[in-house]
Parts: sequence; structure tokens; C-alpha cells
Amino acid sequence: MIDSLRRYMPVLDWGRTYNREAFSSDMIAAVIVTIMLIPQSLAYAMLAGLPPEAGLYASIAPILLYAIFGTSRALAVGPVAVVSLLTASAIGQVAEQGTAGYAAAALTLASLSGAILLLMGVFRLGFLANFLSHPVIAGFVAASGILIATSQLKHILGVPAHGHTLPEMLASLFLHLSDTNLITLAIGLAATSFLLWVRNGLRQTLMRLGIRPKVADVAIKVGPVAAVVATTVGVWAFDLADQGVKIVGTVPRSLPPLTLPNFELELVSALLMPALLISIIGFVESVSVAQTLAAKKRQRIDPDQELIGLGAANLGAAFTGGYPVTGGFARSVVNSDAGAETPAAGAYTAIGLAVAAVALTPLVYYLPTATLAATIIVAVLSLVDVSILRRTWAYSRADFIAVTATILLTLGLGVEVGVASGVAISVLLHLHKTSRPHVAEVGRVPGTEHFRNIHRHSVETDPALVSLRVDESLFFVNARFLEDLIQTRVTEGSEVRNVVLMCSAINEIDYSALECFEAINHRLKDMRVGLHLSEVKGPVMDRLKRSHFITNLNGRVFLSQFDAWTQLSRSPDGHGTK
Amino acid sequence: MIDSLRRYMPVLDWGRTYNREAFSSDMIAAVIVTIMLIPQSLAYAMLAGLPPEAGLYASIAPILLYAIFGTSRALAVGPVAVVSLLTASAIGQVAEQGTAGYAAAALTLASLSGAILLLMGVFRLGFLANFLSHPVIAGFVAASGILIATSQLKHILGVPAHGHTLPEMLASLFLHLSDTNLITLAIGLAATSFLLWVRNGLRQTLMRLGIRPKVADVAIKVGPVAAVVATTVGVWAFDLADQGVKIVGTVPRSLPPLTLPNFELELVSALLMPALLISIIGFVESVSVAQTLAAKKRQRIDPDQELIGLGAANLGAAFTGGYPVTGGFARSVVNSDAGAETPAAGAYTAIGLAVAAVALTPLVYYLPTATLAATIIVAVLSLVDVSILRRTWAYSRADFIAVTATILLTLGLGVEVGVASGVAISVLLHLHKTSRPHVAEVGRVPGTEHFRNIHRHSVETDPALVSLRVDESLFFVNARFLEDLIQTRVTEGSEVRNVVLMCSAINEIDYSALECFEAINHRLKDMRVGLHLSEVKGPVMDRLKRSHFITNLNGRVFLSQFDAWTQLSRSPDGHGTK
Repeated sequence: MIDSLRRYMPVLDWGRTYNREAFSSDMIAAVIVTIMLIPQSLAYAMLAGLPPEAGLYASIAPILLYAIFGTSRALAVGPVAVVSLLTASAIGQVAEQGTAGYAAAALTLASLSGAILLLMGVFRLGFLANFLSHPVIAGFVAASGILIATSQLKHILGVPAHGHTLPEMLASLFLHLSDTNLITLAIGLAATSFLLWVRNGLRQTLMRLGIRPKVADVAIKVGPVAAVVATTVGVWAFDLADQGVKIVGTVPRSLPPLTLPNFELELVSALLMPALLISIIGFVESVSVAQTLAAKKRQRIDPDQELIGLGAANLGAAFTGGYPVTGGFARSVVNSDAGAETPAAGAYTAIGLAVAAVALTPLVYYLPTATLAATIIVAVLSLVDVSILRRTWAYSRADFIAVTATILLTLGLGVEVGVASGVAISVLLHLHKTSRPHVAEVGRVPGTEHFRNIHRHSVETDPALVSLRVDESLFFVNARFLEDLIQTRVTEGSEVRNVVLMCSAINEIDYSALECFEAINHRLKDMRVGLHLSEVKGPVMDRLKRSHFITNLNGRVFLSQFDAWTQLSRSPDGHGTK
Repeated sequence: MIDSLRRYMPVLDWGRTYNREAFSSDMIAAVIVTIMLIPQSLAYAMLAGLPPEAGLYASIAPILLYAIFGTSRALAVGPVAVVSLLTASAIGQVAEQGTAGYAAAALTLASLSGAILLLMGVFRLGFLANFLSHPVIAGFVAASGILIATSQLKHILGVPAHGHTLPEMLASLFLHLSDTNLITLAIGLAATSFLLWVRNGLRQTLMRLGIRPKVADVAIKVGPVAAVVATTVGVWAFDLADQGVKIVGTVPRSLPPLTLPNFELELVSALLMPALLISIIGFVESVSVAQTLAAKKRQRIDPDQELIGLGAANLGAAFTGGYPVTGGFARSVVNSDAGAETPAAGAYTAIGLAVAAVALTPLVYYLPTATLAATIIVAVLSLVDVSILRRTWAYSRADFIAVTATILLTLGLGVEVGVASGVAISVLLHLHKTSRPHVAEVGRVPGTEHFRNIHRHSVETDPALVSLRVDESLFFVNARFLEDLIQTRVTEGSEVRNVVLMCSAINEIDYSALECFEAINHRLKDMRVGLHLSEVKGPVMDRLKRSHFITNLNGRVFLSQFDAWTQLSRSPDGHGTK
């Protein structure tokens, strides 16, 4: 009982040995992560089209729940860029941005996503994430980064614009270009340049000034906060909101509220597929971050338990005014680098953010949305890594096709079509690769009991006897190939009287392949040609016997290929002609 | 030039040796098939929700075009039951049955389907049909048969009813049960019983009366015509149309008209997916019929050329007032049994049907639709073969799940959802089966250079050295399994210093698997454990070298596992510790 409880609640493991030392490491990490998360949470909420407080709320309960159920010691759960984009795309199809229905749909989406993750965890379906090939994920993330950065340009220009695909967004921006608010543009460009410099140049500058590397790293992390403070003060001091600069405005001072998601059938069925997509994409992102961090400390994570942790986190978000969350790369790395030792660090971060939600929200009233947009743009630029195109081109054409299609379809038709097509294409290409099983026509190595490929070795053959060695398991995609191959071979060689299939490498024959075998058997019977099997593995033979195929076989089953040869061939050395 | 023309137009092959003998065989077959096709064509048009003449038109140009481009000598192309049902389901979503838009949408659907088939043929994509596993096809056909038979009950009862799924149809029939027209019901039941008796009892009766088997078979084929004649005469003689018996009514006397399909973007995009589905289902049905018939005469068909033949046939249907067509089982078998020797038999059938369209259509004015419904019901009952459930249950659970899901989803949610889910489920189950590559931990057979599974043989091992033999090619679905397995093994054995992957059975490593290798390499580096490869095949090694993986490898590549062992182990017999 306790054991199974412990399996589902890893907190019972690490919680028992928690001590003062771990507490102080966790506390320090929590302070740094909290400072970083405040502007990030507001920004990602904006990306999802939600009011800023939704980002804060989505960072509080989910972190606590993940700390109880998750297996990674360093993962920080909350809103992330790609999932925020997916959320905007999903709920944009059922409600108008800015309406109450929109925020309500986000809750429904989070609860569906949470339920899907929980179910996948309970039924141990974590392997489903493997169906997303790496090139498809890389292409999808790169294309999402471009979409996200483009979607924020409207805030930098201070114009209204819309669209969920690159052409839509660019066309909409172009139409509104003349409405650009120049003060907003100035703030946006200044914030973007400053953040780029913080990310790329600040460290070196500080080091040259003799600042210690550790301190320099902290300075980089609080860079976004500096941009937030500076532009907020600027807007307030010069009354820029009156000049048309869009600001965050009133954010309620409140702990996360208790919210009840809406489960109307129509809404649920419209959001079910997007929720599935968000769950799987979020899970893949989260697990790969968690695995990378765990490996550094020779720890392990359990992907199926991770599903439960993330499911609980999303349900938490759904009931506390948030939206879909997952383990984020940036925040997790910062958490780990800052010295977090246990998931308790996450709990302290949650407390810090709760304090911020209650006490600090009035301070962001004058924060210009252009600054938040700059934060997002600089954060996602690191996602836009199209080197995957070059790398797959060099390594494998099939992977290159999959990644190119994913990028183009994501940019051109939106995130959902993009990732779904990417998955479909990579599965199809894989199945196509496996659709031609290797089959060798074999003959006897003279004087031995060995049989080898007739095209590679000089072997004995008999024009009336065709022996084919099948080198792969047979299933619906590749079975018909064998069927065609045998029919071609027999139709070509009109003197063929017997066909032997050498099954030594066949581990499985699915039902479709069985039916192909039956069809071959039937056709060869019509052509008065015998069909024989040799060297069938035990488990395969057991199954074949259950299917009556063996009873109806227009020939015999031989233990060895040599037996088949001696019984069926009329070879000149006198072995044959039983 | 001539050769490539001949490849695309098989008529140039058989046409050159056509003689009087073949002509007379073909003529006889054509007369029998024509008589059988007249009621069938009218009935399938009704099933598709189209006016009866559409069925005749769809049997004329398509047969001629297939005769020119197709490779099967006995296949008869035209309207078939399952494709008619798919057509009704597809165009029912874009237009109201009975309107001009409905018939127009059928033309668009046929032209899209033709274009898809032609493109698949030109790009030699016939293998795509293999992605439909046999159990999914069998389940789909059985469920379609049930849907088709149920959809015809409204004509037998003489009530209006609608719906594209079994629950919808049954509910709708139940609501209208009290409106049943008893005369219609009597005609429908009489026709159904008569046709069932023709199919099951007539032959024996005739044989007992001393009729020759050949003649008896012809009698069975003209049975439906007898039912048509008898009920038509009955309705005309007793003025039953005035009693509410639905009749076919006016059918225009005309050769197939020239029609121009509508290619409005909205209509095309709505019909594209259904057209793809119809193309693939139709192709699978047609090819399996053609292959069965060809095998009997030791002939071959070319599946990619079949795509071109069927594509041309569908385009022909689109431009002559028809709807989607494919090679039908019943008509092809009759054609073949009646002695057709070349595709010219199809051309003569087309002429016969054209004569019927011009001269005989007034004769069917009083034909009750209940008789046509009876024809359809009796024809599709042979499709309803649910023994596939029992057979797959006995043979393979995965196949059983796929077929059950296909049947239930087709009945419950309609043909399109049903077949799409069936395909998805069978692909997922197959990928799941392959998602755990076989990996054996190996040790050295003492005193030899051989390495064997440590769980099966008594072998030398070294706690600091883990050797894993990977027995399958690695790709995105199974690569992460290996990654997890290595991490678990190394995390468990804290004294592990080196891991060797023995790659003798790996034929391919896709890009996702390469990235898993890189991740393993990176993590093992973090854990200060070396990662080594042994016995890598040439082509795999060439690819790995192009990717920098080998350059960054946290260990070495050994030609043989024995080399790796001697260099890395600290085994007590003194081989190790380089």
C-alpha cells in the first residue's frame, strides 16, 4: 500500500530526508527563479491571448502539484512559449480573444490536457511520445518560434493584427503598418536591443569589469526585470499611455481563484484534439528537459510518472484560473543551475509568485505590452534553430523531407496541421522504408547443407524449384510485396513446379501477412505449383497451426531448407527426386 | 516511345493479336454482363442517392477507358456497393440529396478521385494501398454491408428515413415505422425472398429438373432481371403507383451526356479527403479482384498501371454524368466465368448499356424502388462476413482490436471515421509492437572470441563494463527505449565505467536514433562513463561519420566486440586493462 502510494507520490521518498542544507539551497534557487518568472509569466499569458494574471496563476498551483507527483528534482513547471502558442491557436477557434468565453475555454483546455496526461500515465502510454520523431519536433519548435516572434510584432508596432499562420500574420501586419505608434515602436526596439545585449554581451562586459561569473549570471537572469522596471517607470513618468502606448493595466490583486472549467459537450469535443496535441507536445518537451537535467546528477526520471505529475499540474491550472502548462527549458535550467536540490524549490517559487500576485500586481499597471513582446521575442529566438534542415539533409533524405514538410506546413497552415502532418509523414516514410522486406533467392552451396543468395555465391539451383529466404518479419505493409514477388517469379519461370519459403528470420506474421500467404497458396495451387515452408520458428508455427493455413497448404513444412532441397529438387548430383 | 506508350496503354499489346475467336467469347460474356448490369446500375445509383441514369452512365465511359488503360483482362469497372455508399456519405455532407448540387458534387468527387488515382499511378504510389491492413478492410467491408442493407430498409418499408450511421438509420426508421406502405412492403419482401431463393436454391432446383449447369448459372444471373420485370409489370397492371408505391419514374432516353465538373475551391476542399478515401478503398477492392482473376490464368496485373486505368475510368465517369467507380467483384467474376478473354468484352458491355440507356429506359418507369432495394440487400449480404472477428481473435489480439474498432466505429460514426480510425489503429499497434527493440546484455564465452546473452549462457562479465547487443534497426519509435535502457542500466550499476554497443544487427539508424545516441553519449559523459561502439556495419558507419557523432564520441569504435573487451575489461584472466 505504502509502496504503491510512494510510486505515485515521489514526494514521500525525498521528503523524508529533507534537511536544513537542502532547504537553504532550494530557497536561493527559488528567489532567483521567482524574479525571472514574474515578467515571463505575464508575457506568456499575453502570447496565449489571456489576461496577464493567468500566467501568474498558471505558475503557482501547477508547481506545487508537480512537486508532489513529479519525478524530476529540477523541473520547473508553468507556462511555456510553444504551449502558449498552441493554446492561443486552439481556443482562438472556439472563442473571441478578450471575451470571458476565451478565458473559460483555456480552463477547459487545461483540464482536458490534464485528464489526458493522467490517463496516459495510469495506462503507461508514455511510449506514444516516441511517435514524434526528433526532426519533426525540431522542425515544429523552430517554426513555432518564428510564428511566436512574428505574432509579437504587433505589440512592438502598437497595431492591431491577427492570424494563426505566417502569411495571415504578415498580411495583417502589412495592412496596419501605417497605424504604427512610433513611441511604442521606440520602446519595443529599445527593450529588444537591451535584452539581446543582456543575453549576448552583458556577461563579457561584467567579467571585464571584474565581476565574478556567478554574479554575472544572476545579472543576466534579472535583465528582463530591469527592462520591465525601466519601461514601466518611463511610461508612468512621461504619461505615455495617453500617447497611445498600450499598457498592461489593472491586474487583480489576488491569490489564484478557484475556477470550475466548463464541460459542455460541444466545447469539449472542439478542444479534445488540440488538448491531445498539447499534452503530447508538452510531455515531449518536459521529459527531454527532465532527462537532460537528471542525467547530470546520475538520477532517473520515470516517464509514466512524469505524465501523472504533468497531468496533476494541468488539472491544478484548470481549477485555479490558469491555462495549459508543462516543464519549461529555461526555467528548469535556471532552477537547476541556481542550486535547487529537491522539488521543494518549486514550492518556494510558488509561494514567491503567490506573494507577487497579491502584492506586486499594481506595480505592473504602466508596464507597456511592447516590453513583454520584446521579452517573448528574445526568449523564442533561441528556439529558431533551422540547422536541423542542414543536419538531416546530410544524414538522411527521409528525415529531411519530414522536417521540411513540418516547418512549411506549420508556418503556412498553422501549428496543429503542421505537427499532425509531420507525424503522419514521418510514420509514412518509415513504413515505406520497411515496405520492401529483404528477400533473397537461395541455392545450395555444393556439397554442404548450407544455402546462400544465388546472386552472391556460386550455388546449385534447380529451375523447377525456387527457394526464397525472407529476411524480415511480415506484416500488413510489407506482406503484399512478398505476394507480388512470388507471383512474378513463378509467372516468369514457366518450368517452376515448387516454391520453398525459408522462414528462418521471420519472427512474426500478422494476420494480413497470413492472408497474403493464403492468397499465394491459393494462386500457386491454381498454377499447379507447390508451396512449401522451411525452418519456421516455433512461436510462428504455433500461430500458423491455429489458422488452418498449414492444413490447407498446397505443399509441406520442412524442418530444414536442406530437407526441402533433398525432397523436392531434381538436382543433377542425385540428391533430389524423392 | 512506342514502348513507353505501350506501358501506359496495355490495349496496344492485346489489341494486335485480337481475332475472331476472342471476339465471339467476348461477345457472349458481354451480353450476360449487360443483362446483369442494368438493374444493378440503377440500384447502386439509388444507393448513392443519385438519379438512376447516373448508374448507367457510370457503367459506360469508365468501362471503355479501363479497357484501354487497365491491365486486367477480366476486370469489369463500374458502380459498386461500397463506393456508392462512400459517395452518398461524402456528397451528403455538401449538398441535399435530390438537388442539382448533389449530382454536381458527385461529378466533382469522381474527377478528384480520378485525378488522385492517376497521380498515384504516375508516381507509382500503389504501395499506399498496403497501409490498409487486411483485417481493417474486412471489418470495413462487413460494416459497410450492414450499413448498406440497413439504408435500403426505408425503400422496402416505403417510408422516408435518413442517416449515415447505424444508430441514426435505425432511429429514423423506427420513427417512421407507422407510415409503412403495406403494398410496398409486400413487393419488397417478395422481391427479396425471390432473389434469395434465386441465389441459394434455384440452381439445385434447375439441376433436379435436368437443366444443364451452364444454363442454370445463366438463369441465376438473370434472376434480378426477372424480379425487375415481374414487379414492374405488377405495378403497371394494378396502378400501384397510385397506392403510394414509389417507382423509378422518368429516366431520360439519352447517351451519357457531356458534363463539366465544378471545381470551386470550397467544394474541392470539402471533397478532397473523401475522394482520397474512395480512391484507396476502390483501388484495394479492384486490385484484389483483378489479382485473383489474373492468377487463375497465370497472368499478371501491374498495380501502378491499374491506378492509371481506374483514374481514367473515374475521370470518364466525371465527364459523362456518372459518379465514382471501381472494379467490382460480382461483375468481374461473371465476366470472367462467362468467358471474357480480353478487355474488349468490357467495350461490348459498354455498347450494350448505351443501347439500354437510349432504348430501354422507358420500360423501367413503373419499376418499384423496393425491387432495387431488394437487389442491393441481397447483393451486399455476401459482404457481411463477420467471421474475421473469430479468425483474428484466434490468430492475433492486435489484429482483433483493429478489426473490432473498425467495425464498431464504421457502424457507429460512419464510413469515413471508421476506415480512418482502422488505419490509424493498425499502424499504431504495429509501431507499438516494434517499439521495444530486442537488446541483450552479452558477456564473453570463456576462452573464445564469442559473446553471448548473459542470461542464457555462462559467460565472463566485468562489472565495470556493460556490453549490449542491439538486435534491430533503430528509428524514432524504438530509439528512446534504448536510451532509457542504457540510462537505467548505468544508473543501477554505480561501478560501471564503460558501455559498449554491439551493432552487428543494426541495418539503419535514422536521425531520431542518431540524436538518441548523441543524448546517451552526452549523459554518459556527464556520468564519466565511456560509450563505445563495436561491429558497426559499413553503410551505417558512413552515415554516422557524416554526422560528427563519431568525432564527439565519448569513447571509441572497435572493429570487433572482442577488441572492445580486450581493451576495456579488467577481467581476471588478464586480457583487460590496456
